[in-house]
Amino acid sequence: MLELHIGNKNYSSWSMRPWVLMTQAGIPFTEVVLRFDSFDPDSQFKRSAEALSPSGTVPVLVDGERVVWDSLAIAEYLAEGFPELALWPEDRGERALARSATAAMHSGFGALRSHFPMNIEARLPEIGARVLRNQPDVVADLQRLQALWERLLARHDGPLLFDRFSIADAFFAPVVMRLHTYAVPVSPRVASYMQQVQSLPGVQAWVAAALEEHDFRPFEEPYRQAPDGA
Amino acid sequence: MLELHIGNKNYSSWSMRPWVLMTQAGIPFTEVVLRFDSFDPDSQFKRSAEALSPSGTVPVLVDGERVVWDSLAIAEYLAEGFPELALWPEDRGERALARSATAAMHSGFGALRSHFPMNIEARLPEIGARVLRNQPDVVADLQRLQALWERLLARHDGPLLFDRFSIADAFFAPVVMRLHTYAVPVSPRVASYMQQVQSLPGVQAWVAAALEEHDFRPFEEPYRQAPDGA
Repeated sequence: MLELHIGNKNYSSWSMRPWVLMTQAGIPFTEVVLRFDSFDPDSQFKRSAEALSPSGTVPVLVDGERVVWDSLAIAEYLAEGFPELALWPEDRGERALARSATAAMHSGFGALRSHFPMNIEARLPEIGARVLRNQPDVVADLQRLQALWERLLARHDGPLLFDRFSIADAFFAPVVMRLHTYAVPVSPRVASYMQQVQSLPGVQAWVAAALEEHDFRPFEEPYRQAPDGA
Repeated sequence: MLELHIGNKNYSSWSMRPWVLMTQAGIPFTEVVLRFDSFDPDSQFKRSAEALSPSGTVPVLVDGERVVWDSLAIAEYLAEGFPELALWPEDRGERALARSATAAMHSGFGALRSHFPMNIEARLPEIGARVLRNQPDVVADLQRLQALWERLLARHDGPLLFDRFSIADAFFAPVVMRLHTYAVPVSPRVASYMQQVQSLPGVQAWVAAALEEHDFRPFEEPYRQAPDGA
């Protein structure tokens, strides 16, 4: 049985990608949560993650003796292992396009990531508006992201980025959650895509579990006060 | 004929990856240089890059009507198109390992990247020493990088990360150049790996062309003064 090691569902955008991919595609796996107690070298999280892989991060996929420790490498591993699921588009040109969009998400959009950390249970529209007023690099990231989605969506009639659910949608799902939390204004087409992603059963399952965590982690919360008793 | 659009060879670490990969593996291509005049939206570079792909960045691979615009997506595209070259290791477990290391380089090591920008013609040992004294996040990136290389190198007798030259070596080649420029102290095994990478004909060809550019770009030079007459 494949074993997927992940962090807190409310916060861990990198973990969300393969979990949503596997859940949505129907790939069976055992989930192992490494709770974000802290990211200090002597934290339980870091000690567990360092024992697991050379990155000291989540997600990590364990398949018997094989340890795959990066979300994109995990996606490629699964695409190879389950060819019948067509996790990438089957047409080579479409696949190259899907990989371009996915790998660009993997390496880029740093301003968006750092100013809009994923926080599924939070609704922070005022923070969103303030960041958009003060951070032109975040605005630039959002413009580029939305232009990319628009361009991919305009190519066909389907509701997702490619003809059917693919790794690309799983990789953009955490960004969809960020845009939702910070109430980023979007075009109707992008709003509709975000709605479609949020209604995928794999995404709904992740979000429902995230909402049940109630595990406020101060080092993941630049914008909220700890709740009473936390 | 495949067409690879790249930036300045002295500076563009992302461009170096697919160029070295294709050159070293013997994949024929036409090179198109988009000179880094500036990264402002109305610069010649940005206008050309924006016309080429949704990312507005280099590298971009053009294969007829197909446009692949991210270095990792380009590598995967080439691995698929030239299976006989085995650009990834042929064993599935080895391939998963190579993809993990490569994708982690693609998304991570941000402190190392930002404090040690690639600058092939420069030798900046004092800057290197100062950054290592003052930037613990760079030190942490370097420790993790070297531990990863050590771990991969310790598994077999070969001089490169896997049994033969692979996408992983091409993706780490720009980092090798950074460590060289800033004279980062490394273990003997890592020093030997760096030497091997620098002696690959594909890397030597890139470096030779970089040294011939003589194109000082102030916005890529946090540490050097413009030469007289630049």
